[in-house]
Amino acid sequence: MLVTFVGGDVGPWTVTSSTTVTGLPLEVVSSVAVLDGGDAATSGAWILSGVTSNERYVERRERSALQAVQAPLDRPEATGAALIPIRKSPAWWDLTQDERRDILEERSHHIDIGLSYLPAIARRLHHSRDLHEPFDFLTWFEFAPEHSGAFDELVGRLRASEEWSFVDREIDIRLTRTDPPK
Amino acid sequence: MLVTFVGGDVGPWTVTSSTTVTGLPLEVVSSVAVLDGGDAATSGAWILSGVTSNERYVERRERSALQAVQAPLDRPEATGAALIPIRKSPAWWDLTQDERRDILEERSHHIDIGLSYLPAIARRLHHSRDLHEPFDFLTWFEFAPEHSGAFDELVGRLRASEEWSFVDREIDIRLTRTDPPK
Repeated sequence: MLVTFVGGDVGPWTVTSSTTVTGLPLEVVSSVAVLDGGDAATSGAWILSGVTSNERYVERRERSALQAVQAPLDRPEATGAALIPIRKSPAWWDLTQDERRDILEERSHHIDIGLSYLPAIARRLHHSRDLHEPFDFLTWFEFAPEHSGAFDELVGRLRASEEWSFVDREIDIRLTRTDPPK
Repeated sequence: MLVTFVGGDVGPWTVTSSTTVTGLPLEVVSSVAVLDGGDAATSGAWILSGVTSNERYVERRERSALQAVQAPLDRPEATGAALIPIRKSPAWWDLTQDERRDILEERSHHIDIGLSYLPAIARRLHHSRDLHEPFDFLTWFEFAPEHSGAFDELVGRLRASEEWSFVDREIDIRLTRTDPPK
């Protein structure tokens, strides 16, 4: 499924902060709209797209553990969100599958760290690299306001990992929903 | 890199046979043009696109073995080619990474089979699934006419594998180059 994030001055998600963590900044906007599937992107300061695709690293026992506790998007209480577009370096993409898996999980514990914040932090990953987008991944997170401290801890642990030494562009956009779903 | 294959009545590759191996057929055409990068696709009976992307299964020792013997495209003697678009079933894509790797290589020996036909059979894989194309992969092969029997053997071995039980659409288009590169 193709998902498009439109940054501009309209949309149900109001930007509360926008931080350039690494690399070139992205224009700061006041609102973000999330468009699923065939919805045409309206104009915006930026339009970022990605596809929800098959998993690239998760193994069976990990998927079972994730599925046992993960939460869906659009929970009424989850009025906080984050959009974190990242790009990884050519050195990352030149690694073989076993080397990328080894760094991502065996040495950086990416899947295991995410698991420990479930079900509070819901997450959806969108792949962009093969679409010739400016970022390789767009990760969207949703959580209740009382879990924003836990979310800071989650991204802090990932940014301290060996895997993150391969991230050469990262923007951290935090949002709040002004019109929660019924 | 985005690569587009245009099937129609123009192009340097003349179709010598077109076989529907599994699933819905593709319109039979007389010629195929291969357009790299930003070249705009002209009109054709069909236009199929894919991206050369990072490897999804190859491990370091396998990449080293492949790189030691593989041949490039566009060899003057390689006047034969094949374009084989395939799609895999939802059951394949629902497997986890370790399960897909296990079927692809440990049980079907896909990488090892390909290796044993190098350097005679040059190959380039294009990923299409995340582009919402009708096929998941477009594989392009080039070889000298005297290796067409070896190529038949290669695809026969792959089609007999457990991995291929997950292929739900496959077209096998054989071609000859009428204007070899200088």
